[in-house]
Amino acid sequence: MLEINADRLLADFYDLRKIGTFKTGVHRPTLSADDIRSRHWLVDKLRAIGHEAEIDGIANVIGRAPGKGPHILAGSHIETQNEAGWLDGALGVLYALEAARAVAESGAYGESGVDVIAFADEEGHFSDMPGSNSWVGQLTEETIDQAVDRTHGLPLREALDKAGLTGKPRRQMERERYLCFLEAHIEQGGWLEANDLTIGVVTSIVGSWQYRIVIEGQQNHAGTTMMKMRRDAGVAATRLLQAIETEFPKIAAELSVWTTGRITLDPGAPAIVPGGAEILFQFRDADPAVLDRMHAKLEELIKAEDTNGPCDVRLEIVSITKPALMDETLKAAFTASAERVCPGKHTLMPSGAGHDARTLAPYIPCAMLFVPSINGVSHHWSENTSDADIIAGARVFAGAVGDLLAAAKG
Amino acid sequence: MLEINADRLLADFYDLRKIGTFKTGVHRPTLSADDIRSRHWLVDKLRAIGHEAEIDGIANVIGRAPGKGPHILAGSHIETQNEAGWLDGALGVLYALEAARAVAESGAYGESGVDVIAFADEEGHFSDMPGSNSWVGQLTEETIDQAVDRTHGLPLREALDKAGLTGKPRRQMERERYLCFLEAHIEQGGWLEANDLTIGVVTSIVGSWQYRIVIEGQQNHAGTTMMKMRRDAGVAATRLLQAIETEFPKIAAELSVWTTGRITLDPGAPAIVPGGAEILFQFRDADPAVLDRMHAKLEELIKAEDTNGPCDVRLEIVSITKPALMDETLKAAFTASAERVCPGKHTLMPSGAGHDARTLAPYIPCAMLFVPSINGVSHHWSENTSDADIIAGARVFAGAVGDLLAAAKG
Repeated sequence: MLEINADRLLADFYDLRKIGTFKTGVHRPTLSADDIRSRHWLVDKLRAIGHEAEIDGIANVIGRAPGKGPHILAGSHIETQNEAGWLDGALGVLYALEAARAVAESGAYGESGVDVIAFADEEGHFSDMPGSNSWVGQLTEETIDQAVDRTHGLPLREALDKAGLTGKPRRQMERERYLCFLEAHIEQGGWLEANDLTIGVVTSIVGSWQYRIVIEGQQNHAGTTMMKMRRDAGVAATRLLQAIETEFPKIAAELSVWTTGRITLDPGAPAIVPGGAEILFQFRDADPAVLDRMHAKLEELIKAEDTNGPCDVRLEIVSITKPALMDETLKAAFTASAERVCPGKHTLMPSGAGHDARTLAPYIPCAMLFVPSINGVSHHWSENTSDADIIAGARVFAGAVGDLLAAAKG
Repeated sequence: MLEINADRLLADFYDLRKIGTFKTGVHRPTLSADDIRSRHWLVDKLRAIGHEAEIDGIANVIGRAPGKGPHILAGSHIETQNEAGWLDGALGVLYALEAARAVAESGAYGESGVDVIAFADEEGHFSDMPGSNSWVGQLTEETIDQAVDRTHGLPLREALDKAGLTGKPRRQMERERYLCFLEAHIEQGGWLEANDLTIGVVTSIVGSWQYRIVIEGQQNHAGTTMMKMRRDAGVAATRLLQAIETEFPKIAAELSVWTTGRITLDPGAPAIVPGGAEILFQFRDADPAVLDRMHAKLEELIKAEDTNGPCDVRLEIVSITKPALMDETLKAAFTASAERVCPGKHTLMPSGAGHDARTLAPYIPCAMLFVPSINGVSHHWSENTSDADIIAGARVFAGAVGDLLAAAKG
């Protein structure tokens, strides 16, 4: 079994954490000075093990292993949400780096190796996973032209230029070079911890359907408009959302999730009956049939409120992402490796969050591995994973890499 | 019966409407240039009928009738909400002006007359009815020091200074000068119109209890946090508000109203389970016992959600105003006058909105009269009342003024 150097791995984690430190986490939004520093840090690390490394025109860091292959592509993303955790995608990047080093050092894999990739902006500061979309040929120049940072409004073109990336080519995946893509990440939820597990092997990355629900009633004086004469958009919103909370559990699957992220009443004043309401609503599941069922139920509940209530209610689709199934052989490799490292402490589970592997899954066999998030926290500076779990995850990850490369050699 | 000059009255309405015209309404926020122009316009009108008129140190316009009295105090407010209607409080001011003119012209009331008042900032641009509160001695210098315009942040002191009012005394009511205070206003609701009525005689001005409901849950990733592990503050808010909509009709009175004006989820992002929620909630009724019952029910429902739900829920009182009962004799005078002008087309009704009469009611007998609002609209530029209803209301108002002054003369 391919083994890692745990001390070296942890040293990398603690080094990278120094770039953009925020409390116990880090603040490295895409193409910020600290994000660029972290990408150059990674390029240096890759060159030190003999990889041909560069930052491409969309800020993906790519490190190519020597040898004719076949190779494994591995990695995740290195930038963070604002004032967020030190692990998140960086975990997957450093696991890939350590696996690449371990393969290179072992001398047992011939012409094969691990290409390491850190995709740009998986966190969506500028747009929807532009790094991995660029890598699979799905990012247009127009999308880049139009993208601006959602926090401070800087255009993506200017940010790329500031980072010295104007004119650099955007690299695309050479499909025939790779056996597969492997990505590790923190779980970002509390399932592994709650069940005393160390490793989650991802079965699929859920599809996420996002909606805007728009309600039109009539704005009125909150003192002089009698209850029975009101067309209160806020009351309609409340009734609809309560119906969703009552009805969705009856048709959803065990791991389906649905969330109301925002409710805006118009005009939002204490003494005015709201004439309008807008709800941001989404649901996720790994099974397309369940997603269809939730969509149909949502439409039914909205139609009922529109027909039976005093307000006009309509549904607008904001975005739809399809579920991405992980590859059977790769899942088996992760599971076998996990059983060696932490017998009985691993599970198959869906990923409720989107990841770069979802972008790559239509083009190349993919698999993902999760390690526990303490208290289920993510996208917050207090996010953490124990050193023991970090090391266990890296051992499982590298073990599977070794097995897969050995199997490919035949 | 004291009669008015309808043509002259309508001419005043159309003149005043030219100051700060916005679409078919007006924009005369408190102490704006147009608001000050309208106050000077009123001073000129009052002086033209022999009243001693001035704008005092808080911008109340006061016009004193000649004669030793007893006098009736009558009026309302002349400023408007932003981009609002042309009638609202201006209706009560112009009814008072016309009644004062009619009394002066009739020569039948000896030393008695009608003092006309236009209170400053009933609409609350700067604070809670500072004009009428100043008039009854309840406005402190500290409140003036701290008040700023809620739209653009200008301090009240600076606004008064710009209007040339710095150093002017704030006039207080000479209680012994007056029989009573009479105020007319548009209904601001659709009750009169829906019931084909011309006049509403106000029985009481409702008490209004305003709350902030604060819910604390746990912020989480909307994809990776399973439903049963969530402490979603938005879901708790929805369940609580739906419980209010279900339970309040069982304990409220026929004309009670309750309103959720704003729901804020924190952080309010589409893919984050809200960790916090804040609700602005209020209810109103004319009966203190009903107000107490609604408060007790609200506390009960909040305690139930706090105890049974996964979030912490607490209630904060923002403000409480007590109901103000209108005077029996004065109500009877309005009703008798209405029965002469529009037989059978008048009703007794509570005022769901606050008015300056609520501020004065603890100090002097008060009564209010409403005319219909077309489609129940108010605080919007499309607010309107038919000319026929405007004239009918003025005739009822002046008729009651004449009867009351005649009765006082004995």
